[in-house]
Amino acid sequence: MRNAIYGQSGGVTAVINASACGVIEAARQHSHAIGRVFAARSGIIGVLDEDFTDTTDVSDDAIAALRYTPSGVFGSCRFKLDDPATDNRQFERIVDVFKAHDIGYFFYNGGGDSADTCIKISRFADRVDYPLQAILVPKTIDNDLFGTDTSPGFGSVAKYIAVSTREASFDVRSMSVSSTKVFVFEVMGRHAGWIAAAGALAADEGYDLSIVIIFPEIAFDRSRFTAKVDAMIHRYGYCTVTVAEGAKLADGRFLAEQGHRDAFGHSQLGGAATVVADMLSSTLGCKCHWAVADYLQRSARHVASRTDVDQAYAVGKAAVEMAMAGDNAIMPTIVRTSNDPYTWKIGKVPLTQVANVENVLPRHFISADGFGITNACRMHLLPLIQGEDPPPYDRGLPRYATVQHIGVPKRLEPFKR
Amino acid sequence: MRNAIYGQSGGVTAVINASACGVIEAARQHSHAIGRVFAARSGIIGVLDEDFTDTTDVSDDAIAALRYTPSGVFGSCRFKLDDPATDNRQFERIVDVFKAHDIGYFFYNGGGDSADTCIKISRFADRVDYPLQAILVPKTIDNDLFGTDTSPGFGSVAKYIAVSTREASFDVRSMSVSSTKVFVFEVMGRHAGWIAAAGALAADEGYDLSIVIIFPEIAFDRSRFTAKVDAMIHRYGYCTVTVAEGAKLADGRFLAEQGHRDAFGHSQLGGAATVVADMLSSTLGCKCHWAVADYLQRSARHVASRTDVDQAYAVGKAAVEMAMAGDNAIMPTIVRTSNDPYTWKIGKVPLTQVANVENVLPRHFISADGFGITNACRMHLLPLIQGEDPPPYDRGLPRYATVQHIGVPKRLEPFKR
Repeated sequence: MRNAIYGQSGGVTAVINASACGVIEAARQHSHAIGRVFAARSGIIGVLDEDFTDTTDVSDDAIAALRYTPSGVFGSCRFKLDDPATDNRQFERIVDVFKAHDIGYFFYNGGGDSADTCIKISRFADRVDYPLQAILVPKTIDNDLFGTDTSPGFGSVAKYIAVSTREASFDVRSMSVSSTKVFVFEVMGRHAGWIAAAGALAADEGYDLSIVIIFPEIAFDRSRFTAKVDAMIHRYGYCTVTVAEGAKLADGRFLAEQGHRDAFGHSQLGGAATVVADMLSSTLGCKCHWAVADYLQRSARHVASRTDVDQAYAVGKAAVEMAMAGDNAIMPTIVRTSNDPYTWKIGKVPLTQVANVENVLPRHFISADGFGITNACRMHLLPLIQGEDPPPYDRGLPRYATVQHIGVPKRLEPFKR
Repeated sequence: MRNAIYGQSGGVTAVINASACGVIEAARQHSHAIGRVFAARSGIIGVLDEDFTDTTDVSDDAIAALRYTPSGVFGSCRFKLDDPATDNRQFERIVDVFKAHDIGYFFYNGGGDSADTCIKISRFADRVDYPLQAILVPKTIDNDLFGTDTSPGFGSVAKYIAVSTREASFDVRSMSVSSTKVFVFEVMGRHAGWIAAAGALAADEGYDLSIVIIFPEIAFDRSRFTAKVDAMIHRYGYCTVTVAEGAKLADGRFLAEQGHRDAFGHSQLGGAATVVADMLSSTLGCKCHWAVADYLQRSARHVASRTDVDQAYAVGKAAVEMAMAGDNAIMPTIVRTSNDPYTWKIGKVPLTQVANVENVLPRHFISADGFGITNACRMHLLPLIQGEDPPPYDRGLPRYATVQHIGVPKRLEPFKR
């Protein structure tokens, strides 16, 4: 019997704690093989710092409450490990920490960057003959993970964006005769337009709304864009523009670059909405409103997709079951077995195929003019936002959970990261 | 038996259609006195243009669905009538239109500016001996209407802001060890800090979250503010800042002025969040994320307050009942009869007391340091966000209603506004 450690990495989501719930509940089902279940505080940083919460004695009810709690309850991180080819001290430390606490199972809950972290740890453990099974529990709102039909976290963001786009389109339509004619809604998505595409779900055969999407995959052309919005305003009286934060000009520059970069070297974006709104008010002379959803979209557990919650839980549970079956350096995936009715099952993919690959929106999911989605895209996305799973409310607000921190005594000297 | 006309004015809300529902359902109960119920398309503009929807033959089910539909289903407007003292042609037109359609009851659904519109129409009708009862159905997300304990529309915005602030605070707390330490959330409120105050409801005895509020009522002092946020980051590791769009410097300038003005001469704001985020990242050197809710906050019917929906419906219904009782130039109000347990009833106030008065957050509702709310404020606000009233969902999205436009034949020549 060996212990397990679970960690959360990268931008958090509305359902990453549902995966934590899946991991911990499944581990409790396998108490013949898994001893204590630790949660690293702030992902791999908590491993380096030997800073864990011991979830073993946390009540079943408290763990169950993670299913409906957004954010990363154990803390997440943006922290890129050194390249072990040039400096392997961090990896030696990780293995030392694992040894000190008899960790046999490492469940890392993240996206493409975390796959890279996970695979490097797995390889290093192999190299030093430390027996470890490292499994990535998939998570990313961007839906750009390779090898899985969808990434847990995305369905709930997509639902939030579709609901918000429908609501805001109703709003601007009300105002458009004498006031605001354009509502610009900036959503996440640096390189992949999956989230932006969800804005188009707000309109369907029952809801003939005026929506234009700006995808990062399509080079932004100012004159074509303003002509499109102008035409939509002439037809409908108003227009909602859902713009991905990563919208780019033909030369690859972001429509709105803030200049900051995160630990992985990614640009930190925000402000595409103001650029678009200013462009439209100056070119078309109409009043524009704009919103930037930022963290709201990925923390909005109150309007999460039930499908997404179920899948987030399922990949957590499957990660443990795969570890029990002897798997290593893999990621459980969502496999779509049918579109209508939508059915899915759990599959798996080697991490070598996942790390550092970005799965963008395929061109045939984007309409010919580049400003909308095709029916194929709609059929692909709609199942992912199905079902509601509201959290319990207490005195008017969602009763989200926290997990009591039960510290684990440190057995090693501090490490200078 | 005379006809009634209902119109929507100013910024729409998540529950203004619940008031429309209240007016129309109550009018149907008084079919002995009220003949047809028209809805002006785009508020007073529809009256001037003689452009109505006849709701009389719209099904009961379609009217009932307005209760859970955000936005202004008949269209709203931002349109200031001329001063009748200098040019009364618009008022003559309005009375001509009312005469042509035998309108005896005018229900106008709006805020302070609409009270002014309503009272001027009432006075002009008196002056020309046209028998008319003009009643304002209160509505404004800003909660700044005089004479009522709260304005329908506010409770749902407050709930959206409190829920979103709680969710985003969980998110930034997760990220704060190695990444984002500050989340800045810009909310509406030009002069009144009621909406911003709702951000503070996210934290309570069960949720010790790190939240700082920037109120428009408190002159913004950069060094005091950055010191406050710095102290909060030292204590909690992160900070959520909820900033009112109308935050002002000591000299009265807006923190973020876009330079546009609407039809009533109000500045059109937006961008305080970026100013605050830039200030904090440059002063404190921490990574900041920011969001601007804009229309999302007032259209978010999916997370509306049940209390607010009930009150919006009740003032619509009461407006009709007051008209039946002979009232004119008044507004039904919400009267709080007890705080704990929260109870309320309907009252009324003359429009002369309502027009063009802004009811800002009282100083004793703001904490001594100016960055939070007092317990008195919390006790005042909490009842307003109680209860959930989710809309029906269909295929993953809220099934909001539209009302079939049944046009009313025009009886007059067109009018040049």
